Amino acid sequence: MSFDRVAILGTGLIGASVGLAIKAARPATQVVGYDASGDTLRRAQQAKAIDRRGSLRDAVGEADLVVLSTPVGAMRILFEEIAPLLRVGTIVMDTGSTKARVLEWAERLLPSGTPFVGGHPMAGKTETGPDAATATLFQGAVWCVVPGTQAPRAAIESVISLIESFGAAAYFLGADEHDGLVAAVSHLPYLMAVALIDHLGREGSWRETASLAAGGFAYSTHLSDSDPRMFADIASSNRDNIARRLDLYIAELQSLRDAIANDSPDLKERFERARALHTDWLAGRAQGQSGDADAGNPLPSTRSMLSGSLFGRLGR
Amino acid sequence: MSFDRVAILGTGLIGASVGLAIKAARPATQVVGYDASGDTLRRAQQAKAIDRRGSLRDAVGEADLVVLSTPVGAMRILFEEIAPLLRVGTIVMDTGSTKARVLEWAERLLPSGTPFVGGHPMAGKTETGPDAATATLFQGAVWCVVPGTQAPRAAIESVISLIESFGAAAYFLGADEHDGLVAAVSHLPYLMAVALIDHLGREGSWRETASLAAGGFAYSTHLSDSDPRMFADIASSNRDNIARRLDLYIAELQSLRDAIANDSPDLKERFERARALHTDWLAGRAQGQSGDADAGNPLPSTRSMLSGSLFGRLGR
Repeated sequence: MSFDRVAILGTGLIGASVGLAIKAARPATQVVGYDASGDTLRRAQQAKAIDRRGSLRDAVGEADLVVLSTPVGAMRILFEEIAPLLRVGTIVMDTGSTKARVLEWAERLLPSGTPFVGGHPMAGKTETGPDAATATLFQGAVWCVVPGTQAPRAAIESVISLIESFGAAAYFLGADEHDGLVAAVSHLPYLMAVALIDHLGREGSWRETASLAAGGFAYSTHLSDSDPRMFADIASSNRDNIARRLDLYIAELQSLRDAIANDSPDLKERFERARALHTDWLAGRAQGQSGDADAGNPLPSTRSMLSGSLFGRLGR
Repeated sequence: MSFDRVAILGTGLIGASVGLAIKAARPATQVVGYDASGDTLRRAQQAKAIDRRGSLRDAVGEADLVVLSTPVGAMRILFEEIAPLLRVGTIVMDTGSTKARVLEWAERLLPSGTPFVGGHPMAGKTETGPDAATATLFQGAVWCVVPGTQAPRAAIESVISLIESFGAAAYFLGADEHDGLVAAVSHLPYLMAVALIDHLGREGSWRETASLAAGGFAYSTHLSDSDPRMFADIASSNRDNIARRLDLYIAELQSLRDAIANDSPDLKERFERARALHTDWLAGRAQGQSGDADAGNPLPSTRSMLSGSLFGRLGR
């Protein structure tokens, strides 16, 4: 399916970047935007991320693809609202930060038989809103794909084609697996930054601390600049995975603390191992982004998953 | 004093950058380098960070300023080695990452009456070695200054002039105060990054985790790329401050974890507060670096400290 009419619900950074990427890859596609904030919607149109603004009914009623790009907390009610507006056969996808809740809502609230393909592009920046959106945001990024149980193969392939036209690489995984992994690579790093600056900021010596803080501190606190609303929704919708991951991280810090307090002789070795892991990760990432995805990236490729034995898992 | 002959002991990133900054500000100064690694020393000369290589005796015997720029762990023996080589009146300064131990060694091991001015430029990068050195590394940076008890005012003023000629702003503080503050703004951020990538790297799912990790993860793990030897020395020489700081940070993470597990309604507010602190810090930093130091920077200025009531503390 070529998607002649796309509705984007939520035209912030990700939704507007999806709009720009669609217009860049397929200029003839008509993109209608909807956002709870009239201002965000107007700015998305100014940024040419959408062709026109619409009501929910307008946007969804005519679309052959509906993309939900709101914070996760807003999606449940959005599924309820669009359910009666969807035409038969319209594909629904999302770009939400967590997947288990979203899939559960989609399966329960959308009309039976609606092809739903959950997703999450592993790309972004701390800046929010349509003004920060770019058509190239997803280039070289991994795009997690979690199809709903009722999504037929053709619908999944159409969504994959779209994602690949943005320059992203689709990666199939289960909702729970996704939520466990992003707790580690995305939610924990955000909370680390928040905890660092917030506990120092409450101390009486914060002014002196802030004066000495330099480049290293800028790296460690950068993510605290992310959207608080988005992360409050993430915390709520991925509570158990985040709590488990924080427990593991706290245990690791405690073990480092004890090694330092006891002047452990293997401290330098731990530091060397961390540096080697980081170097390897960066090298794999550079390889993946240079387009040589199968060499640098341990993920099964889209084609092998769609054509090979793994597809059964997707067809469910 | 104008420093016609400078000896730099340790010609890695910081030592070589000091050399380049000296040559940029005062081209006539003769800079002699010494490093335990012949290769590092040769590369420093190739980078034009030093005019010539010397033995410790050569470098120190003729110098009117000796700059120690090794990892802290190497400084104790270096103080012992240079003690019999120093001419009367030669000023000794250092750029080490921690100050209490260094000051203790300097006072105990250098000849009585040697003017020692401890220091620590709050600048750097994760790259190491003289090839990464630049003459501008210290521009806009805060340079912590911790004078020894025997350093006369003239020696302190000479060092301050040098630091200011690099474009840095001198900040006077006590050794213990310095070590407590850098545990928060520098040592903890490094350990946060190490703990993140090291605990994930040991898990069976590391390949999948690494594949999903994107830009945010790059920020959070960036500092793990720092020199392991330097940080092993830091951990050992600032053990108590680091352990105390890690305890506070772990308690903060635990409180965040509990708030998430209990779906606390004030989570979004905490996230907003962290973002506001980060925004304010960045704004103050930008102001400080634009040269308007007194407006953006709560630190007492060099001039007010040298001329005003605070000077008594420095003269000790």
